[in-house]
Amino acid sequence: MADPIRSASESTSSSGGTPPAALQALRQSIDNIDTALIAMLAERFRCTREVGELKARYGLPAADPAREARQIARLRSLAEGTKLDPDFAEKFLAFIIREVIRHHEAIAREAEVRDTPGGVSAP
Amino acid sequence: MADPIRSASESTSSSGGTPPAALQALRQSIDNIDTALIAMLAERFRCTREVGELKARYGLPAADPAREARQIARLRSLAEGTKLDPDFAEKFLAFIIREVIRHHEAIAREAEVRDTPGGVSAP
Repeated sequence: MADPIRSASESTSSSGGTPPAALQALRQSIDNIDTALIAMLAERFRCTREVGELKARYGLPAADPAREARQIARLRSLAEGTKLDPDFAEKFLAFIIREVIRHHEAIAREAEVRDTPGGVSAP
Repeated sequence: MADPIRSASESTSSSGGTPPAALQALRQSIDNIDTALIAMLAERFRCTREVGELKARYGLPAADPAREARQIARLRSLAEGTKLDPDFAEKFLAFIIREVIRHHEAIAREAEVRDTPGGVSAP
């Protein structure tokens, strides 16, 4: 079996040479975190898809500025607690919400087509 | 104690009226998922900060196109498995990497200032 400590010390011995084994270890952590992020994002879009369907059924607008303002304040506060840049947290939420609104508008359009008699197969 | 099933059925009884309790339940799930996302992102930036410090020490460039190509392929494949739009997964990674490169460049600039004799306090 490979000795991770030895191989780390070997590859860190030459500055400017091969990146150290520590870099590979960090990249493995990043890949694991990304796996979790993708799973969480998939679950989030499952929830927002259901929200979109409810909004379409109740004729509610896709965007909800009051809810978004509460989410921004909450995420900025959470970010501060985890030492994440609050401005980045806000940009991240805006990035996600842009995608969610795109989905909601698509759901609303689909609902309109469904509600139009013969809408789906109209010429 | 409130009966969530009863209150859900009450508020879903009038289409076009108050959004149903189901909407509130979904929003609570979204908030919980966002809490997890923020924690994961904070941990990811802790890792990439360490990567940035290693890269600065070894004189490696902030961007690494070969690594990014592997990450894109991996995240697209993961996204497909979770029913997340692979194009969104790729946009998400690009969004995160833009921020990471911004951090790496800042770390590299800080390292340059530190390595310049009297750099920090130079007039």
